Amino acid sequence: MDRQGKLIILSGPSGSGKSTVVFRMLSERNDCCFSISATTRSAREGEVDGREYFFVTRERFLQMIRDDELLEHAQYVSNYYGTPRAFVEEKLQNGMNVILDIEIQGARQVFQKVPDAVTVFMLPPSLTELRERLVLRGTETADAIEARLTRARQEIAEADFYRYMIFNDDVARAAKELSSIIDAEHCRFNSSGIQMILES
Amino acid sequence: MDRQGKLIILSGPSGSGKSTVVFRMLSERNDCCFSISATTRSAREGEVDGREYFFVTRERFLQMIRDDELLEHAQYVSNYYGTPRAFVEEKLQNGMNVILDIEIQGARQVFQKVPDAVTVFMLPPSLTELRERLVLRGTETADAIEARLTRARQEIAEADFYRYMIFNDDVARAAKELSSIIDAEHCRFNSSGIQMILES
Repeated sequence: MDRQGKLIILSGPSGSGKSTVVFRMLSERNDCCFSISATTRSAREGEVDGREYFFVTRERFLQMIRDDELLEHAQYVSNYYGTPRAFVEEKLQNGMNVILDIEIQGARQVFQKVPDAVTVFMLPPSLTELRERLVLRGTETADAIEARLTRARQEIAEADFYRYMIFNDDVARAAKELSSIIDAEHCRFNSSGIQMILES
Repeated sequence: MDRQGKLIILSGPSGSGKSTVVFRMLSERNDCCFSISATTRSAREGEVDGREYFFVTRERFLQMIRDDELLEHAQYVSNYYGTPRAFVEEKLQNGMNVILDIEIQGARQVFQKVPDAVTVFMLPPSLTELRERLVLRGTETADAIEARLTRARQEIAEADFYRYMIFNDDVARAAKELSSIIDAEHCRFNSSGIQMILES
């Protein structure tokens, strides 16, 4: 009986529908939550510290790196983003499964620090379908869409260290698969469970 | 997208409730079935060939062993029991998940022949609880019950090659866990799925 939560590292190309699937799953079970990142960028209107992000100064962020308080971090443009270890660990200890929606590079960093994290890679049903989704969004030029598709191919080709993959051709089904993965991972054989039963 | 079924090797001490849990799960999903054993013992009243067992002659059984037509076999008293490979493979190819309820020795044999089989060990919530269940059955002497508990301890201590363990303290929950394990295993990362998507 494994009361501690699981850390779920979720990656996948932009447009694979990770957020939609996770939000669907969160609406169906209350023992899961998203990880909250720390960032040095300023809060936008409507963003609340500790809800969308933990907003910290650059000095504080650099201190967090030095003190190994981040499971991973990266810099985009001039801002830092990272995953505070303390938040994740507290949630896990309280039995919450923590979902970390993160790119492959960050996923590798986290997986090295938390080897029993559960790695899940989400895929669109096909690259043709992914292109259509990106076109339908209508927010990007054709060139930008092709660049995203090239990036998606690279990510997919690098995804071989993930334990699971979910083809998101149907949000409800993909959410159920993610949910099943979490439940199954709580059933992984562990020798402390065996020891407990032998002493019972 | 993994259309082929999974072979589920399910073991656990007598009294852990394997059959009850599997029957509950079978009532909730129609893509799973039990494996059917071949045996040399005679059919009992009400037993139907191809439903409870495949009833075969001793000569036929020995031929099946020689022709490697069995995933495992064992002898109890003067009768042979074994798992016909063809039945399992046909079901798997048709997308059915096949549940093989089998002791550890047989499980090892099958796991060697089918390395991508999913191994699940079912446990009672505690050995105290297991003793109570066996006493409540009222079918065995106190000595026989103690012998079963000793055997259960041995089995549990040997179970370290199973991938999953389910504590059966609640049939509905255990059935859901087994079901989640099957769904999660269908999401295991596989490079042919990746290849398919890269070509899509």
